[in-house]
Amino acid sequence: MNIKITGVGSFIPEKIERNSDFEEHRFLNEDGTAFNQPNAVIIEKFEAITGIRERRYLQEELTNSDIAYFASERAIEDAGIDAEELDYIIVAHNYGDVRHEGMQSDTVPSIASRVKQKLKIKNPHCVAFDVLFGCPGWIQAVIQAHAFMKAGMAKKCLVVGSETLSRVIDPHDRDSMIYSDGAGATVLETTEDEGGILAFEAATFALEEANFIYFGPSYNKDHTDERRYIKMHGRKIYEFALNQVPQAMKACLEKSGVPITEVKKILIHQANEKMDEAIINRFYRLFGRPAPQHIMPMSIHELGNSSVATVPTLLDLVLKGKLEGQKLEKGDTIILASVGAGMNINAIVYKL
Amino acid sequence: MNIKITGVGSFIPEKIERNSDFEEHRFLNEDGTAFNQPNAVIIEKFEAITGIRERRYLQEELTNSDIAYFASERAIEDAGIDAEELDYIIVAHNYGDVRHEGMQSDTVPSIASRVKQKLKIKNPHCVAFDVLFGCPGWIQAVIQAHAFMKAGMAKKCLVVGSETLSRVIDPHDRDSMIYSDGAGATVLETTEDEGGILAFEAATFALEEANFIYFGPSYNKDHTDERRYIKMHGRKIYEFALNQVPQAMKACLEKSGVPITEVKKILIHQANEKMDEAIINRFYRLFGRPAPQHIMPMSIHELGNSSVATVPTLLDLVLKGKLEGQKLEKGDTIILASVGAGMNINAIVYKL
Repeated sequence: MNIKITGVGSFIPEKIERNSDFEEHRFLNEDGTAFNQPNAVIIEKFEAITGIRERRYLQEELTNSDIAYFASERAIEDAGIDAEELDYIIVAHNYGDVRHEGMQSDTVPSIASRVKQKLKIKNPHCVAFDVLFGCPGWIQAVIQAHAFMKAGMAKKCLVVGSETLSRVIDPHDRDSMIYSDGAGATVLETTEDEGGILAFEAATFALEEANFIYFGPSYNKDHTDERRYIKMHGRKIYEFALNQVPQAMKACLEKSGVPITEVKKILIHQANEKMDEAIINRFYRLFGRPAPQHIMPMSIHELGNSSVATVPTLLDLVLKGKLEGQKLEKGDTIILASVGAGMNINAIVYKL
Repeated sequence: MNIKITGVGSFIPEKIERNSDFEEHRFLNEDGTAFNQPNAVIIEKFEAITGIRERRYLQEELTNSDIAYFASERAIEDAGIDAEELDYIIVAHNYGDVRHEGMQSDTVPSIASRVKQKLKIKNPHCVAFDVLFGCPGWIQAVIQAHAFMKAGMAKKCLVVGSETLSRVIDPHDRDSMIYSDGAGATVLETTEDEGGILAFEAATFALEEANFIYFGPSYNKDHTDERRYIKMHGRKIYEFALNQVPQAMKACLEKSGVPITEVKKILIHQANEKMDEAIINRFYRLFGRPAPQHIMPMSIHELGNSSVATVPTLLDLVLKGKLEGQKLEKGDTIILASVGAGMNINAIVYKL
């Protein structure tokens, strides 16, 4: 028995927020002091490092569970299954449903329950729950679906990564330019077909690293309310990711038994272009090789960092030929990898 | 290979909130109108139905991840394992960390990551994540740990249910008297010992039921802020639970092959005493029998409804002989069962 992705779908919000839309922001340092540079320079540097030119924000009247549902509907249609056949709906996210200009995360009922309701699934044996695992949540939920199938508990699972980071960003924080909204979904099924999930790897580094990404107050000290926003220690994350992610990917590839030369694409969490490039270069260096050109499809330039949604969205774009110069064919082996809040890392070696 | 609970621990907050502490509350109907009865009568009726005389509230300076940690420490000590050996830390909750008088749920990093950090676990292969599945979250997390073990992905898992409902209650809602704070934790291990998890059952009813428990505004219409609180449609939940929970428990028991006469105890989510009694009576009626006396240990009178924490806390109390007239011995078969937001239902047949 193998476990394969039989359907993919994503939802990319229509509203484009360009870097120029941040020109009037008053960016502050963590201690509340002003930057010494004009915004044009800050934005230029930001783009040079992250690769992000624009990002997507969800329209005001929708929330996370809506876009999780939109992506799910597409993945189910792509798989050509009846949604009633699903054994599990697993939704990875980190902030639940946050309304436009709202402060509170709404997670009761779970986002997965809401998606199930919107999909109009009657079958009570389709069990719906949410997973919180930072940005690597979608890959982790795939690993869980894999476990359920291996344990004989499931044959068909819907696994979704959906996040609306635009609802939790501090406008005074330069890092707010990184974040984006989006949803990606996949249907996984047991199959006698060759390939599928060949190996996986997961890790949580909490002792020193738990608060590298956290919920903190606005950098604008005039804000006297208690409201907190997504915050990160960017430099620490960069170093951590470079030290740990290539090793985890290597361990995963070795478990799979696939030689490095067989890897056709690496779909990595769209966190920051320079960081992703450095990870891939270091990963290949562990095998004494240079990273092949076009090995790493990137959506970050136009889509930013939508947390749990980046990897399944990227997979959807590449599989459907919607990313220029990038394609995949049946029989190709790919690596999926992610790093994020927790700090968590994971990777999957997958044969199409 | 069997899968057994080798350690249990719980944290019951010290602060007791008695029914009399609600005497000065201004209880309102959902539409904002006043009740026609004095508070003394409302409270008396409440106690007659729910069985709740008092509940526990967390002290101001602590949050959910603190008590999840306290319970975890006790369970690990009880199991006599080195925490570094854990393959997974799974924390079930629904509202994350909410500060005293705070409005926001903090779930980044995950509560499981925070627990791992507090436990000072270095091993990165101990993977920490959170599960959102309403009140049945802890049982669901046990089912997940079971899957990981069956799939060969884990040998030792820490599974925690922890919630601080006192941080999300509307003081004008009579139902606020139901809710409580607490944490329960268990260590699960693979073993050659007889017994353990014999069968499980899980279901999500979302089509009509997703919003039976929800996040809604205060019943006090003078509150003009956007703040929302835990809310429930009590009557609908009661009917739903009575119709669905006994059937799910029966299906689970039949899967296990254990005869009804062998069931020594049923540890059910402490939601409401009258509802729990009605569920158990109906369950036994499905087998054409009356419910045996003392079959259902109850902690609700003193501890209220602490969501995901009730079942593991109850298990801890019974196993350690801390609940009067209730005891369990090696070889006894018990049923764990829960129902809650989602609407989700689950059950486990477990042999000690």
